[in-house]
Amino acid sequence: MATEGLLSQRMARLKSSAIRELLKHSKMDHVISLAGGIPSDALFDFEGLNQATQRAITEQPKNAFQYGLTEGSDTLRVRIAELCALRGVKTHADDMVVTAGSQQALDLVMRSLIDPNDVVVVERPTYLAALQTLELAEARVMSVASDKDGMVVDELETLLHTQRIKAVYLVPNFGNPSGVVLNEARRRQLITLADRYGFVIIEDDPYGELRFTDERNPTLFQLGQEMLGHNDAVIYTSTFSKILAPGLRLGWAILPQWLLHKVATIKQAADLHASSLSQTIAEYYLASGRLPTQIDKIREAYKHKGELLGSLIEQELGDVIAFNKPKGGMFLWARFREPFNTTQWLEKTLEQGVVFVPGEFFFPERPDYATLRFSFATATDEQMHEAVARLKRAL
Amino acid sequence: MATEGLLSQRMARLKSSAIRELLKHSKMDHVISLAGGIPSDALFDFEGLNQATQRAITEQPKNAFQYGLTEGSDTLRVRIAELCALRGVKTHADDMVVTAGSQQALDLVMRSLIDPNDVVVVERPTYLAALQTLELAEARVMSVASDKDGMVVDELETLLHTQRIKAVYLVPNFGNPSGVVLNEARRRQLITLADRYGFVIIEDDPYGELRFTDERNPTLFQLGQEMLGHNDAVIYTSTFSKILAPGLRLGWAILPQWLLHKVATIKQAADLHASSLSQTIAEYYLASGRLPTQIDKIREAYKHKGELLGSLIEQELGDVIAFNKPKGGMFLWARFREPFNTTQWLEKTLEQGVVFVPGEFFFPERPDYATLRFSFATATDEQMHEAVARLKRAL
Repeated sequence: MATEGLLSQRMARLKSSAIRELLKHSKMDHVISLAGGIPSDALFDFEGLNQATQRAITEQPKNAFQYGLTEGSDTLRVRIAELCALRGVKTHADDMVVTAGSQQALDLVMRSLIDPNDVVVVERPTYLAALQTLELAEARVMSVASDKDGMVVDELETLLHTQRIKAVYLVPNFGNPSGVVLNEARRRQLITLADRYGFVIIEDDPYGELRFTDERNPTLFQLGQEMLGHNDAVIYTSTFSKILAPGLRLGWAILPQWLLHKVATIKQAADLHASSLSQTIAEYYLASGRLPTQIDKIREAYKHKGELLGSLIEQELGDVIAFNKPKGGMFLWARFREPFNTTQWLEKTLEQGVVFVPGEFFFPERPDYATLRFSFATATDEQMHEAVARLKRAL
Repeated sequence: MATEGLLSQRMARLKSSAIRELLKHSKMDHVISLAGGIPSDALFDFEGLNQATQRAITEQPKNAFQYGLTEGSDTLRVRIAELCALRGVKTHADDMVVTAGSQQALDLVMRSLIDPNDVVVVERPTYLAALQTLELAEARVMSVASDKDGMVVDELETLLHTQRIKAVYLVPNFGNPSGVVLNEARRRQLITLADRYGFVIIEDDPYGELRFTDERNPTLFQLGQEMLGHNDAVIYTSTFSKILAPGLRLGWAILPQWLLHKVATIKQAADLHASSLSQTIAEYYLASGRLPTQIDKIREAYKHKGELLGSLIEQELGDVIAFNKPKGGMFLWARFREPFNTTQWLEKTLEQGVVFVPGEFFFPERPDYATLRFSFATATDEQMHEAVARLKRAL
């Protein structure tokens, strides 16, 4: 459908031009980027990817280059179900659709689930590209605040007293941009509310594996199963982009029976199926057993980077900027202690040669201009030291 | 958006179950399939694909596995512009979006172009999956007949006297399922009408290279440029699926300036970008210079298969079935001379061990039950002899 005049159109434009600007500047040698939401390709398991690719094109060339099933290859879906089981997501190959990254999983879910003006509640701040899919589906987006323990579910409960909602979208683990984790009590409360008020939870989990501690919460999917005795209340989406390689464009959605066929039908119209080559490579990669080691490697590297960035900011900028230490993922979300506009500040930091993403772009409404998102995934230690020094000079 | 109750929902269901049934039976050893719309993987250039893949993952591993640009890689878009130039489509890398096959190109175009209830005119019969994208965009689909020279543009002109339309969708070269080519006079007439009545033409061209003769018509895109002096009236979509490998999921859309940004914005929300790995492989494959030879090989093989199937049907079933000899592409579209229901007949041919696609599924309205589509792309010579003998026995 056409997209004029809807909620986040303005933000999409802003983001689009801002990101373009940032990327343009990020490519300049002297600019250090703490802006991008991309994983570090210095950590990619090129050896394992290479081996898996060799096997895909020599052992299964026809499968790798021919059309495939809309819902994804049988073998890959079995492997993904195994991977999900390790996360406490007990599912079956038949309950999922393989997608072009979790971005497509979100788009397909919104297209199949949302009728125009259906209310979808998101966290404030939230993942911007999810808002774009909600806008395309003509959802009416409402938001509740998020704090250091994730979405403030009490606020959602208050909203539910007067407002019928269709779905809640959230990233419960190390969200983009907030980096926080939804605590277990709130997870349970959310499941109870979903059951009582008849909405569906869209649990978007690209970063769950990338935790820096052994602390681990049950997934909403698992709690839904345990507390309600069925899988109808939670849609679980995830991706290989942050744990393997985003260039493969592979993600997945675990879907309740009542939505599965509709999502598959729209997937067929959208692009027939995900890349057969990428799927065959992922099959062999998962079969190789290298993924757990690779995830450990990424966790360790990001933990170091996240801690370093945190300590540098605390040391150099701690009197003006507050933040929670990241416990996983790729992002450090910060907030100026005094009223401040980080979008305007970006011009100054650009002059000094460092970029981030201003926080306002992640708010569906009531933007907090004092916030900003740093990514620590791609910068080297040296670059982080230099970046924080430059940020300080830009104050 | 939700999809209940719309025009082709019934057809999608029918098709879905029919195709599932067919696929199930096609997998049984004794059943010969003339049903699938897939290219012959016996003709894939595995050597060239293998070489291109090796170069992609060894020379550009980071580009192949990392996130990329929404509109597609710069290099690939330049290569595609060169490929288009050979087809008479003079374009520029900046005027295109690389997509997950032409299926996604159609979905993105419909999502960005169509407001609910906008009228889109298609051929009767037409490509079914295009109807699915139109349904998702909530278009009001109207149709005009097609004959041996393609869409009957006179009929469209009559319609335009009383009906405002937003777009015309057609496959002008060796269309699926009809196999016919829109002749040049009608192409020119269509461009004139687009200009006079202010609609846009969606020229879907997956099969244009697969012609069996040297006869070649200018593309609608080219005629639009020449006759109108601008690129605003024609959207051109195509794919690597029929000339290289569908499993890569790579296609493209050449877009007028007034639509380009909107398509790219929706592409970003839909799946961020096409597989980086597939794009890097396609770059190296195109650079290798093997594509023209590969296209010649496919043309020659399909020409032989198309002629063989034609002559067998003429010989064995010519008294009951009429058809036009295919001049390109992958399909032979046929029609029983007397009133007949090919959907019902499919049950009998299945018993004999041969399947096709009943024609009714390709009609957005007023289905012609006496029609059917044969694909000659994948069956061997022996299988085609046997298939036609079985069809005869099923009469």
